[in-house]
Amino acid sequence: MADKSPRGLADVVAASTAISDIDGREGRLFYRGYDIHDIAGKISFEECVHLLQRGHLPTQAELGTLAGELAAGREIGSTAESLLGYVVTSGTPMEALRTLVSALSVDDPDAGDPSIEASRRKATRLVAQMPVLVAKYEAARRGSTVPDPDPELGIAGNFLLQITGERPSDRAAEIFDECLVLHADHTMNASTFTARVIAATLSDMHSAITGAMGALRGPLHGGANEAVMRTLTSIDDGVDGVEGFVRAELEAGRKLMGFGHRVYKTEDPRATHLRKMSEELGKLTGNTLYHDMSRRMEQAVLEAKGLYPNVDFFAASVYHALGIPHDMFTPVFAISRMSGWTAHVIEQYEDNRLIRPDSEYTGPRDQRWVPIAER
Amino acid sequence: MADKSPRGLADVVAASTAISDIDGREGRLFYRGYDIHDIAGKISFEECVHLLQRGHLPTQAELGTLAGELAAGREIGSTAESLLGYVVTSGTPMEALRTLVSALSVDDPDAGDPSIEASRRKATRLVAQMPVLVAKYEAARRGSTVPDPDPELGIAGNFLLQITGERPSDRAAEIFDECLVLHADHTMNASTFTARVIAATLSDMHSAITGAMGALRGPLHGGANEAVMRTLTSIDDGVDGVEGFVRAELEAGRKLMGFGHRVYKTEDPRATHLRKMSEELGKLTGNTLYHDMSRRMEQAVLEAKGLYPNVDFFAASVYHALGIPHDMFTPVFAISRMSGWTAHVIEQYEDNRLIRPDSEYTGPRDQRWVPIAER
Repeated sequence: MADKSPRGLADVVAASTAISDIDGREGRLFYRGYDIHDIAGKISFEECVHLLQRGHLPTQAELGTLAGELAAGREIGSTAESLLGYVVTSGTPMEALRTLVSALSVDDPDAGDPSIEASRRKATRLVAQMPVLVAKYEAARRGSTVPDPDPELGIAGNFLLQITGERPSDRAAEIFDECLVLHADHTMNASTFTARVIAATLSDMHSAITGAMGALRGPLHGGANEAVMRTLTSIDDGVDGVEGFVRAELEAGRKLMGFGHRVYKTEDPRATHLRKMSEELGKLTGNTLYHDMSRRMEQAVLEAKGLYPNVDFFAASVYHALGIPHDMFTPVFAISRMSGWTAHVIEQYEDNRLIRPDSEYTGPRDQRWVPIAER
Repeated sequence: MADKSPRGLADVVAASTAISDIDGREGRLFYRGYDIHDIAGKISFEECVHLLQRGHLPTQAELGTLAGELAAGREIGSTAESLLGYVVTSGTPMEALRTLVSALSVDDPDAGDPSIEASRRKATRLVAQMPVLVAKYEAARRGSTVPDPDPELGIAGNFLLQITGERPSDRAAEIFDECLVLHADHTMNASTFTARVIAATLSDMHSAITGAMGALRGPLHGGANEAVMRTLTSIDDGVDGVEGFVRAELEAGRKLMGFGHRVYKTEDPRATHLRKMSEELGKLTGNTLYHDMSRRMEQAVLEAKGLYPNVDFFAASVYHALGIPHDMFTPVFAISRMSGWTAHVIEQYEDNRLIRPDSEYTGPRDQRWVPIAER
């Protein structure tokens, strides 16, 4: 009835999208037709949210409107607030945040409204709420609270303020803002695809995003940036220990986290920017250890395996230098990707068809029931 | 780079599975090689769980072991218990249950253990917890509590006891048990596929199942059984009103819920059994209205459109007759499908590859950044 497709649906076109595009051979990434190299470092995360969710880069007036909506939508509501104390006790931050994001639907002013317009408002609120939720989770497990947001700071600056408890330098806020732009969307990655499969049943925005959170958590997806940091901190002897570590891992047949990508056959264009930020932050903080180790590892892996670093690789040393706790790297990815996920959910609603693939049956046939006493 | 696939991945083979198989042309469904017609009404839901999750119909000793594990795993834990009071205030039951299922991970004894063995234990617990969670949600919104489970009853009987507050008749428990068997698995439906996409990132069992809950909620998937009941209750004049209603709906170009299926080209084999149960329960309860209306609607839709009823259609009148509140029909579907979802997640872990399809870009190209003041 159906031809067998490549495992993992590699290269199978699962959806049309006008949100982002990848040229894997050339190593290029586009957000709505803008090359990531043309906009990274030039647009704020808020402008990026407007581009992805609303289809074009905002005018000053449109950006002002969006900023107002984001500020107004930042409150996480009493249900998620009450839940914080329960979910900090066990599991990874992403498991807790999956539950918290799901709970945001209870207090959403548009709860129960399945219209696309209501979903657009939910999308803006989710982008505004996610950094607050992550920072409040971090504060809750430390037994403290977050500082009030500073109206002079954007999403990036306020998140650094709330998660570290200290006002970031202007340059740190700018660099983190660029990180958020770089991670915002990436075509049919596993979490975005999850969100679209859920949305295609015409389920609600929070269901789709909660599913995406669950997928992002996986070590083969968003969990990789945290795994890179674990790798770096596990190596004794700093830079000098890197080559021996890489050799031992490859000889043992283990995969090195943060390298290679299903789509890119050359350097991930996001890695180009993150490498520069990692270098700059090393100098700014006076601690270049993890950047230097990353550079040495990059060279060793390229020589040994011909693999290039992906987005997760230099994100690790960048987030570390920004003072973000290591197990919060994947939640930080979610703060950014929320913009892409929600844009994809809206796009799915706008021209929907249920996503219901086929499967190939490989088990036994012609089994016959016998009474339990005769089994 | 990739050929365009049919919209919604129709007929695209997304995974191999030894759990279930459908012959859409002949209208046949198999669980691990057993024709659903051969096992429906003969095996209990517990035997079905064993078949799907552990690969074969249990011996009496194996069934005893599983029953012990299910009874021991039924507690939902203090986090979900505490949450109940918050999530009943807004949204649909499925949105609340999505949050509650996600929260089950916090108190799971295997939380944080990513091994397949731990995932198997989580799978058994989730099957045991789901009916309790649904019944407790129903009780919480009524401001009451559920009766203690009766050790003489299985999952089906205890669920009816806990959700209605009354011990079900033996026959009602048997019929509901068969309903749970009929809904337990169905190849790559949207929620099962969601669970596999999430699991394929090597994310945890609760992430995969939470995503599946979100997908099942959609009106194009599990939400359809509740929509059928809304249709039946919306028709004035009972049986006599059905034909006019069907004609008016079809003339208005609206879809009739509970008819047609992407895979079956003939009668859904599950509908055959549910039709009989609906008839029997009508007689047992002395109220055949919804069964009679369903029969008339089935004939009218077949004549007008050549469409057959699917699993959701007669499930509506069956669940109504069993005393299950109408907006709890989709949660009841989830109680059953939990067995299939968890089996598919384990199968995905056992031979994993990241599910990461491609997309076709349809938006503008060659956009150039200009400063915000010039936009």
